[in-house]
Amino acid sequence: MNNEPFSVVPLKINYKTLEDFKQFREYGLEELYMLEDLEENLIENHLRSPFFGIYDGDRLVARMSLYEIEAPYDRFFQPPQNYYELWKLEVLPDYRNKGLGSKMVQYAKNLNHPIKTNARSRSDQFWLKMGFQPVHYDPNRDRGENPYVWLPEGIELQK
Amino acid sequence: MNNEPFSVVPLKINYKTLEDFKQFREYGLEELYMLEDLEENLIENHLRSPFFGIYDGDRLVARMSLYEIEAPYDRFFQPPQNYYELWKLEVLPDYRNKGLGSKMVQYAKNLNHPIKTNARSRSDQFWLKMGFQPVHYDPNRDRGENPYVWLPEGIELQK
Repeated sequence: MNNEPFSVVPLKINYKTLEDFKQFREYGLEELYMLEDLEENLIENHLRSPFFGIYDGDRLVARMSLYEIEAPYDRFFQPPQNYYELWKLEVLPDYRNKGLGSKMVQYAKNLNHPIKTNARSRSDQFWLKMGFQPVHYDPNRDRGENPYVWLPEGIELQK
Repeated sequence: MNNEPFSVVPLKINYKTLEDFKQFREYGLEELYMLEDLEENLIENHLRSPFFGIYDGDRLVARMSLYEIEAPYDRFFQPPQNYYELWKLEVLPDYRNKGLGSKMVQYAKNLNHPIKTNARSRSDQFWLKMGFQPVHYDPNRDRGENPYVWLPEGIELQK
């Protein structure tokens, strides 16, 4: 864990992390699957975690997932390339409006790959502020999502 | 529009419907795309709408989308077949806890195709009550979603 307060760190998938996840609103099959996986493998601090988060002392107070999509599956960016899907960005209620969400998104941008997210629940203004842009909605590809993307220098959207 | 109160009806995509949609929390690029589409085609009561809803008089108070996925893209059901993705199920706050959500899901089930949804925000109990079941989470396919499915008689999940 990093010593600087409220810095973003990769999350180790162990029993404590999975217990911490129960505090978040978006908790479901993905988390249960990670738990099963942990139990079957009997490995602590599993490396396959796509999760990142912020601790206040020992308490996980914010998290997000960055899932890498490989270039052959890229339907958003030009040229097609590996990119991240960002999901489950969530800050616990007591820690909101302190910039922790922005800090996590900034961490993702620093990885310097394009990012795609689904801007849910009227969060468009947040994503615009973070430098994301809406895509042109494609019903077959986007299936009811509200996709916003972040483009590193030199990258464009597919036509 | 159906005369029975609070019955589920297919929504015509016209300027009134798109204005009605603004009352719902999940409003974004999909709705803007439908508006553009309407403006470009200058066609009222557009037929391509995947939306269904419930009216109280003239007021749209609940909605959902049922989007048909074709068999070659089916990664959930055995045998692979056309199925519906159900999303944007939402009842306006004043109309909650009156069974309107259940009524909409029942409408979808009556179409007698398998249904897949993403059970967000700890809604698992609602979907179980409606006869849905969780899938075995597959990170590549499910990408952070929380998929619950409804199986008509004789249909199974893919292994």
